[in-house]
Amino acid sequence: MKFQQELSDFKKKIDIEIAHYFDEAIICAKKTDFFSVQLLEYAKKITLSGGKRLRPALLFWSYKSFGGKKYNQAIKIAAAFEFLHMFFLIHDDVMDRGIFRHGEISLNQYFKEFGNKNFKNTDFENFGNSCAIIAGDMLYSIGNKLILDSKFDKKDIVLVLQKIQETIFNTAIGQMQDVYMEYDEKMIEKNILNMYENKTAKYTFNGPILAGALLAGKNIKEVEKCIYDFSVPIGIAFQIQDDVLGLFGDIKKTGKSSTSDLEEGKKTILIIKAFEKASVSQKKILKSIFGKKNISKKEVTNFQKIIIETGALEYAKNIIKINLNNARKNLDKIKFSKNNHILFKNMIDFMENREM
Amino acid sequence: MKFQQELSDFKKKIDIEIAHYFDEAIICAKKTDFFSVQLLEYAKKITLSGGKRLRPALLFWSYKSFGGKKYNQAIKIAAAFEFLHMFFLIHDDVMDRGIFRHGEISLNQYFKEFGNKNFKNTDFENFGNSCAIIAGDMLYSIGNKLILDSKFDKKDIVLVLQKIQETIFNTAIGQMQDVYMEYDEKMIEKNILNMYENKTAKYTFNGPILAGALLAGKNIKEVEKCIYDFSVPIGIAFQIQDDVLGLFGDIKKTGKSSTSDLEEGKKTILIIKAFEKASVSQKKILKSIFGKKNISKKEVTNFQKIIIETGALEYAKNIIKINLNNARKNLDKIKFSKNNHILFKNMIDFMENREM
Repeated sequence: MKFQQELSDFKKKIDIEIAHYFDEAIICAKKTDFFSVQLLEYAKKITLSGGKRLRPALLFWSYKSFGGKKYNQAIKIAAAFEFLHMFFLIHDDVMDRGIFRHGEISLNQYFKEFGNKNFKNTDFENFGNSCAIIAGDMLYSIGNKLILDSKFDKKDIVLVLQKIQETIFNTAIGQMQDVYMEYDEKMIEKNILNMYENKTAKYTFNGPILAGALLAGKNIKEVEKCIYDFSVPIGIAFQIQDDVLGLFGDIKKTGKSSTSDLEEGKKTILIIKAFEKASVSQKKILKSIFGKKNISKKEVTNFQKIIIETGALEYAKNIIKINLNNARKNLDKIKFSKNNHILFKNMIDFMENREM
Repeated sequence: MKFQQELSDFKKKIDIEIAHYFDEAIICAKKTDFFSVQLLEYAKKITLSGGKRLRPALLFWSYKSFGGKKYNQAIKIAAAFEFLHMFFLIHDDVMDRGIFRHGEISLNQYFKEFGNKNFKNTDFENFGNSCAIIAGDMLYSIGNKLILDSKFDKKDIVLVLQKIQETIFNTAIGQMQDVYMEYDEKMIEKNILNMYENKTAKYTFNGPILAGALLAGKNIKEVEKCIYDFSVPIGIAFQIQDDVLGLFGDIKKTGKSSTSDLEEGKKTILIIKAFEKASVSQKKILKSIFGKKNISKKEVTNFQKIIIETGALEYAKNIIKINLNNARKNLDKIKFSKNNHILFKNMIDFMENREM
């Protein structure tokens, strides 16, 4: 079965679990505060409205591939990973002033509008942001709790949760690098790749795969390095592909407008390389469009053209290729059963060609 | 020894640990991102610039009182509680638009000013808030990690961390109630007391004392109820005393201006009762001052006068007394050794008369 199909089948299963754990938290909140119930209901809604469930799937498949058999418990940990992910996304939307998430109005924006309708106090943006900060904090605690409540060996729970806290700390560093870069005028390729490693590769790929292996009883010393060597290159390739799709992707497939990254002024490898290689007149055009609000279709086309002409797209695609080849090579060093080896191999192929 | 002295002696010890764990995180960040180092350095600075270390002390004393002997490990958990506390305070300052914390410039404000000095992008408030959201998230992960890294029995670590995640979830609900109340016109005493239970009593008192007992090896079923009955009334009394000090306290002792709660429009039991009992002319004065910026000394005095005349102060002091008497009664049901019994008894007395 193709990777995309596997992922979509898994999503159906895990979403039932995610909904269930949201409902548990909502029941808990109902005992004490009616508004927190609304907060959690809306967090549930945006969580279930989109997303690929890549992190939960990687955790689960890694667990299976390393020989784990407690599927019911692993699925709980997989759900926990989605809670932790949503914690980051909801906080991220405050920092980016994001108004959409998974095709719905973002949590901060939703409660900003709620405030506008219901209160006399006029600082609605602050109200929306406060709701989002609190909701994110709640989801972080729920994610941790799910892992602690699981029926794995306590020793393994402690070890996995240690690794998860380290990953969250690192992802927060990556997030800080991302925010800082948006404000800082200087753009350095090395910093961006470093940020990709912290914010995406360790977080989306290395974290879940390592956790799956540890829960399946693997010795950390035996698997840590080989999982890192396999997963981090995929993560970097994944992020760069994300940047490419952000600019050249089809909104029907990606669910993301091709102007949003540009309007946000998101500094990616594509952008840096294009600015570096652009002629004086090209640079003028890039500057006039990058970070501008309400970019037109024509402007996007002009921007894309320069990204291609400067060789920036080619350059990015090449980094993707190199990283995925590294991942392929390093996958062979991990002793998976044949079926699971194919699954991860398919994943690498998917990363190279994905349009969503 | 008086409670205040005990607490101040403990603070000296625990601050060395807290500084040490900040330094460990800073070393970690140094490997990958220079700006995150600055973020953590500043978080360390405001953490160590003030605060009573009540939560760490309660954890440690509870652990000792319930017969725990691994003092070195308990002190690590105590430090973790301060990291978790600072995570809340730093996020809280974003929501309240706080500009001071522990007598220093708050983290959000500091990095807003940093942005103003260093960047061309003009949305500095968003930059400062982003820094504070990320720093809070980091401290949450560090707090969890310290607990997971401790050398207690893994079973106890899992149990204590479960309780801590529940407490954090509940505190987030309390925080949401607090924020909501600031926006909502309606003020209901019941809601405020409920918020005090969630945001302060369970968090500051019940959480650390229960965790100490569990780490000392007590059976949760045996201690959970009696600790709750003892600690929650203290917490509610503590919070109401905080409100009283916020309006009547000496800034030299509290470190907090007597106008800040008023200017923020913080709804407390004192405020609600005063509005409820005020005559038409008194209500007019209350309304003209409550929530106003740059309140004068004269206005504070007028406000205080009405709080006293309406009986609101008396009413609040009475709730404090009732709760502390409950706590005293329930303390006797906990089997502490004589020395430790006195320590907690002194704590109750301190809560009644504290000026800091």
